[in-house]
Amino acid sequence: MSEISRDIIETFENPYPQRDYSIETICPEFTSMCPKTGQPDFGALTITYVADQKCFELKSLKLYLQQYRNHGAFYENVTNRILDDLVAATEPRSMKILAEFTPRGGIRTNVTVEYRSEN
Amino acid sequence: MSEISRDIIETFENPYPQRDYSIETICPEFTSMCPKTGQPDFGALTITYVADQKCFELKSLKLYLQQYRNHGAFYENVTNRILDDLVAATEPRSMKILAEFTPRGGIRTNVTVEYRSEN
Amino acid sequence: MSEISRDIIETFENPYPQRDYSIETICPEFTSMCPKTGQPDFGALTITYVADQKCFELKSLKLYLQQYRNHGAFYENVTNRILDDLVAATEPRSMKILAEFTPRGGIRTNVTVEYRSEN
Amino acid sequence: MSEISRDIIETFENPYPQRDYSIETICPEFTSMCPKTGQPDFGALTITYVADQKCFELKSLKLYLQQYRNHGAFYENVTNRILDDLVAATEPRSMKILAEFTPRGGIRTNVTVEYRSEN
Amino acid sequence: MSEISRDIIETFENPYPQRDYSIETICPEFTSMCPKTGQPDFGALTITYVADQKCFELKSLKLYLQQYRNHGAFYENVTNRILDDLVAATEPRSMKILAEFTPRGGIRTNVTVEYRSEN
Amino acid sequence: MSEISRDIIETFENPYPQRDYSIETICPEFTSMCPKTGQPDFGALTITYVADQKCFELKSLKLYLQQYRNHGAFYENVTNRILDDLVAATEPRSMKILAEFTPRGGIRTNVTVEYRSEN
Amino acid sequence: MSEISRDIIETFENPYPQRDYSIETICPEFTSMCPKTGQPDFGALTITYVADQKCFELKSLKLYLQQYRNHGAFYENVTNRILDDLVAATEPRSMKILAEFTPRGGIRTNVTVEYRSEN
Amino acid sequence: MSEISRDIIETFENPYPQRDYSIETICPEFTSMCPKTGQPDFGALTITYVADQKCFELKSLKLYLQQYRNHGAFYENVTNRILDDLVAATEPRSMKILAEFTPRGGIRTNVTVEYRSEN
Amino acid sequence: MSEISRDIIETFENPYPQRDYSIETICPEFTSMCPKTGQPDFGALTITYVADQKCFELKSLKLYLQQYRNHGAFYENVTNRILDDLVAATEPRSMKILAEFTPRGGIRTNVTVEYRSEN
Amino acid sequence: MSEISRDIIETFENPYPQRDYSIETICPEFTSMCPKTGQPDFGALTITYVADQKCFELKSLKLYLQQYRNHGAFYENVTNRILDDLVAATEPRSMKILAEFTPRGGIRTNVTVEYRSEN
Repeated sequence: MSEISRDIIETFENPYPQRDYSIETICPEFTSMCPKTGQPDFGALTITYVADQKCFELKSLKLYLQQYRNHGAFYENVTNRILDDLVAATEPRSMKILAEFTPRGGIRTNVTVEYRSEN
Repeated sequence: MSEISRDIIETFENPYPQRDYSIETICPEFTSMCPKTGQPDFGALTITYVADQKCFELKSLKLYLQQYRNHGAFYENVTNRILDDLVAATEPRSMKILAEFTPRGGIRTNVTVEYRSEN
Repeated sequence: MSEISRDIIETFENPYPQRDYSIETICPEFTSMCPKTGQPDFGALTITYVADQKCFELKSLKLYLQQYRNHGAFYENVTNRILDDLVAATEPRSMKILAEFTPRGGIRTNVTVEYRSEN
Repeated sequence: MSEISRDIIETFENPYPQRDYSIETICPEFTSMCPKTGQPDFGALTITYVADQKCFELKSLKLYLQQYRNHGAFYENVTNRILDDLVAATEPRSMKILAEFTPRGGIRTNVTVEYRSEN
Repeated sequence: MSEISRDIIETFENPYPQRDYSIETICPEFTSMCPKTGQPDFGALTITYVADQKCFELKSLKLYLQQYRNHGAFYENVTNRILDDLVAATEPRSMKILAEFTPRGGIRTNVTVEYRSEN
Repeated sequence: MSEISRDIIETFENPYPQRDYSIETICPEFTSMCPKTGQPDFGALTITYVADQKCFELKSLKLYLQQYRNHGAFYENVTNRILDDLVAATEPRSMKILAEFTPRGGIRTNVTVEYRSEN
Repeated sequence: MSEISRDIIETFENPYPQRDYSIETICPEFTSMCPKTGQPDFGALTITYVADQKCFELKSLKLYLQQYRNHGAFYENVTNRILDDLVAATEPRSMKILAEFTPRGGIRTNVTVEYRSEN
Repeated sequence: MSEISRDIIETFENPYPQRDYSIETICPEFTSMCPKTGQPDFGALTITYVADQKCFELKSLKLYLQQYRNHGAFYENVTNRILDDLVAATEPRSMKILAEFTPRGGIRTNVTVEYRSEN
Repeated sequence: MSEISRDIIETFENPYPQRDYSIETICPEFTSMCPKTGQPDFGALTITYVADQKCFELKSLKLYLQQYRNHGAFYENVTNRILDDLVAATEPRSMKILAEFTPRGGIRTNVTVEYRSEN
Repeated sequence: MSEISRDIIETFENPYPQRDYSIETICPEFTSMCPKTGQPDFGALTITYVADQKCFELKSLKLYLQQYRNHGAFYENVTNRILDDLVAATEPRSMKILAEFTPRGGIRTNVTVEYRSEN
């Protein structure tokens, strides 16, 4: 089972920090492993945030998410952890992640987590 | 007509109880029996909840719902009972169930029930 | 032109009156007659309500709606009358009817009426 | 139970009899009665034909089909009879009718009948 | 370029003035002329209103809108004018018009105008 | 595990045996059991046939298919067996069954079987 | 009622006459008048052809089709005439026109006409 | 890399400045260059605004946007700059731009920016 | 880069070898690695075959396909190799594989390969 | 107006030349210039071919197609030329290109060209 490092996420300077605006990034090719059965899970992530000083760079986001390819974790863990890592890397005004997983045993699960800066 | 037991629902510890986040579970293969005609009914359940200390485990949820396969009950009863059983098993902060039944006699019915913890 | 009787609507006891929950019933096969031209009109009714002590029984609802098959009335009249009859029969906490009629002369009409109990 | 008359179908002269071309007429608002239960059936008819000397007139087709509104007959009978009546009225080079009925008891039925002139 | 007359709009008495309810009328076959190029424009109008004492009659609405067929006017003008004319004819409690025009030069435009009575 | 009887299928006389025409019956609410895991399977059956002297009656078809509800069998077996039983009951000119099963383990299966009378 | 002139159709030289290839042009904004009622008809034309020496120019096609805006003619006439005019103007190897008209009285009509050069 | 000039945007007088109404303009054919790789980016812009005294003219908007065809800039920059330029040109009561870019590396990005006048 | 073994594919006896019938298996969660860039590729496989004596078992197919998860190969190689392996394991009468890969650089690729037994 | 060079197309060796199989490549982000108006055109290309000894490499295909970005040519020319260039570069057994252009003046055009090797 592989390790996940949040240091891989690169950022660039928000070009319009004076304005609150929304960036939505959709990653329909997310895959991780079920820690119980060792079977792969598939899903789509939708990350929506209002940047403060930093935006995440898309190629580094892709490499960060590819770390989960051979990593075992439950849906609820994965989604909350990705939020924590992206918040730590970009310190946004707010961020929300919707993770939609493909069906297993005829049952489908979506997890929604949200962060709001205290300032 | 078979009996329904809520004891079959297993839970696991919510990995992020410090954060209010939403888990949505969609079960498109629900089936029960009409108590009047003995004919099977089909439907899809969408369960959305904010967990407190416990999340329900998906495989046990599936087994719990399969108990309705040969059980006779009206739509309104079924939906309210599933909410009661899942609330008893997981003691969530809030939970909502949408049950969408397939047409009978050219008429389609959806039932929506909701629970909100008093804390 | 046939008469409409609201007495045909049967009810059963709401199994969970202690909880406010929503029942949505969709009837895509509604048909009546245009009082001016005598031509048939077609439409779909979506009835959404929060029951108090009584729920309407689906088969009797179907028979009630079939009375409109050879009855002439304008869209606005039909929709308001069905609301009045269903409210009288079930005394709900609230009820809403959306009637979507198929195009005539290239023009399509939807009517939405709503009732809210004063308690 | 009302009678069906094929004499109601009016025709007009095919403006281009020198060319084999196809006319497709779609009637999504067909309704008749089930002869066993007396309940209304709903469906859509798609009539496709290559006219010879005569085309059917659309308003008279509508009036012809409205005769089935209070007429009891099984799907297979209805579809074959409409073909026979339209062939008798228009004497086409070929004609095909697809009748798609809405679900009853969770089961949906489509009937396809075809006529080809012997010349 | 033809003239537009609002006198063509006929009304009938609202059958349920004691209740606030919504009537939505959709006209997907609207066409007018571009005043600059003389080319036809196509669009769909969605008119939603809460009637007070008067409802507009659908056939007269159709004839009213057909006056724009050979009339030259910009999108913003057309939509606002139709609102003014329908408000003058029916004196509604509120009315909203959404006009969705088909693409020109790869660009599509929607205009939304709204009226709310001061009583 | 329940037994399947083909004797339950009732037929009625084909009203137009002089004409080859197609009857398509779609049953989206089919369910059986996996013989290995004991878990329910769900699917949709599309039965298309040209009747000779007999058509199957829809209500008896429904009851015949409901026998599979607690019966364990693989997809390939189920589909071929239903074809054999319907051919035995109706002796059609030809018949085709498409069985579309819902996903298991992220994998979806469709089976198509066909019968053609030798006359 | 306005006149239709086929002279308005301009052509340009087929850039690849050595190759049989297909050009499909879709005009979703066609409108003409019903000769009986004077009401506008709307439809979409799909013109597919294999050019020989000449292709039709799109702007001139648009102007040609706009001539029908205030011209009264039945569906069957309109479609056959447009085929005749485009064949005369471009002398193609083959051409096919599908005209799909919007519903009138709940009934929708599509006309398909085809030309094939004798060489 | 080409320069962008906002002077190219022409305006016309708002025909109904006395009324707050919404104009939505959708440009699905936007393309610019990635400043890092020199590869083209594609996207759709949806511009929604409430005009004050001036509306932008559509043809000039198209020419303004075509300046980005060979211009290199990141998504966040492009979207914010277009908002600034359109606000400068039209001085609207409010304006919002949604830019939806096509996938790169399996990842899709949408940017939403908004302006609200201080009066 | 991991090795692929075809020995992992298990089969079971075709229950109806006397009949030619079609089995279609759809695997929307296929993933492999690009051998040039090391980046993951995603796609959907549709396998359609007429079995002779052997059918492949679905769980073993899933495990066979999961071997490609960390295996580097081009689309054309992957698809042809899977066909070769499944043909070797099941010796079918015929088999066809459609592989639909998700876009890379704005370009999407589908590969279709087919096998037909010589008997 | 820029020049188009076919030398930019790179190929790799077909890994399975012993088998006739189909490769379909879809490029939804094609853009060129109208030679008459200088305005950009947009479209989607679908290239389907059976390779002989050579397959085209996707990145070089993308660069080849990007040459049309500032190149002026009519639809019919563009599509035939791309076919000629890809056939020259890969010498396939057969190749087909479908070019679907976005609407101009309310009219949409698709061009289909095909090549078949004489061996």
